[in-house]
Amino acid sequence: MSLTKNEIKFVKSLHQKKYRDSNQLFIVEGEKLIQELLSQKQYKIECIYHTQDYSITEQNEAFSTFLISKSDLERISNLKTPNKVLATVRFKEEEDLDLTKKKLVLLLDEVKDPGNLGTIIRTANWFGVDQIICSKNTVDLYNPKTIQASMGAIYEAHIHYRYLLQILPALKAADYILTGASLTGENIYQTSFKEKTALIMGSESHGISTEIMQALDQAILIPKYGTAESLNVGIATGIILAEYKRQLP
Amino acid sequence: MSLTKNEIKFVKSLHQKKYRDSNQLFIVEGEKLIQELLSQKQYKIECIYHTQDYSITEQNEAFSTFLISKSDLERISNLKTPNKVLATVRFKEEEDLDLTKKKLVLLLDEVKDPGNLGTIIRTANWFGVDQIICSKNTVDLYNPKTIQASMGAIYEAHIHYRYLLQILPALKAADYILTGASLTGENIYQTSFKEKTALIMGSESHGISTEIMQALDQAILIPKYGTAESLNVGIATGIILAEYKRQLP
Repeated sequence: MSLTKNEIKFVKSLHQKKYRDSNQLFIVEGEKLIQELLSQKQYKIECIYHTQDYSITEQNEAFSTFLISKSDLERISNLKTPNKVLATVRFKEEEDLDLTKKKLVLLLDEVKDPGNLGTIIRTANWFGVDQIICSKNTVDLYNPKTIQASMGAIYEAHIHYRYLLQILPALKAADYILTGASLTGENIYQTSFKEKTALIMGSESHGISTEIMQALDQAILIPKYGTAESLNVGIATGIILAEYKRQLP
Repeated sequence: MSLTKNEIKFVKSLHQKKYRDSNQLFIVEGEKLIQELLSQKQYKIECIYHTQDYSITEQNEAFSTFLISKSDLERISNLKTPNKVLATVRFKEEEDLDLTKKKLVLLLDEVKDPGNLGTIIRTANWFGVDQIICSKNTVDLYNPKTIQASMGAIYEAHIHYRYLLQILPALKAADYILTGASLTGENIYQTSFKEKTALIMGSESHGISTEIMQALDQAILIPKYGTAESLNVGIATGIILAEYKRQLP
């Protein structure tokens, strides 16, 4: 079966944020991610487009499936080497912030690289952290590179976009210790984490914004032994989450 | 000044490994990386191509400089948004492995993603680790994405490409404890690191190869609290280096 020009144009438009937002749809690609997508409940699939060498075992009337040619898949794909199957998926409804049950909440202040955001979501999942609050100027969760890098961890995460300054009082009121990573912070290995921690990670180029720095309860630092100016924000997040879990397993 | 078609073709050819290898030259791009390049001694610059809005303060007869147009820079650049200046740089001569002075040596077994390799070099630098041995099937150090992600840390690193299985006996003879990251390893927080550690990180998809697994003195694991199948290899390397430095600062 061949897709019409308009169908191709529509799916391709979802590579761009403004069309994802207006249609409330995003793209998931590749056998592995689609397999996980089919077995989760948080996101509703709209359509699945697949080539002949992909067999869809799931029988489900909730979404449409289209058998398409390899060249049509190449046309709608965002990958260099498209991988048999692509789905359009409906945005999840905005959830309420849950500040009662979670021990550690992760806040991201202006993380701009979609690959970094995806890797952070995947790393947070590894350490059992499923609540992430992104600043409004953090890159779009539904960017294809974020989805790809998250390796399916987005299906389980609860991700909110908020003005961080506005959310900090609620976190304080819920007894979270506001902890920010900063090059002027205290050595992380001389820091005792509290169970209820709100960990705030800033952008690589600018760090945490000044207003948020002023609201912190503690600033922490991963000690440096070389000359590199900074750590990648995903790496720094991984190291701090690992240290939190070492102290409070 | 305008570059000739052949000059453009030549610089562009260095985006590909086979031409980098045959010319023993690679590309460095962007103001920040070039600034660090100019102040280091390990690598010899061949040519610097820059647009009018970049002023080259360094007076140096060791390399040629070319003032070029923006459109020529776009032609030879590997970046989406080229940044004022690009240099061609000579490969460093193959160095001998130094197994006497170093405490921690990092080995990479088949790391395929150039961004991951660059981030690992940058992270290793942060923790004072400057000797890295890559398996022969690890991605090329001089891949533009590796250079970009390393953020200048490659200038200080000593990076060797070897058959890992052939190098392990020399590491053992030099009293290194061969330590590999593995999903079947011992909890890293119940592991005591020895000062002389050879840390081996495998690929995300396949882990450390079977033959190397059999040669290990210890296998270690970063404990998991969520459902993610694996950690990104850069993140895992960062967490293990941080834990080594926590135990042995």
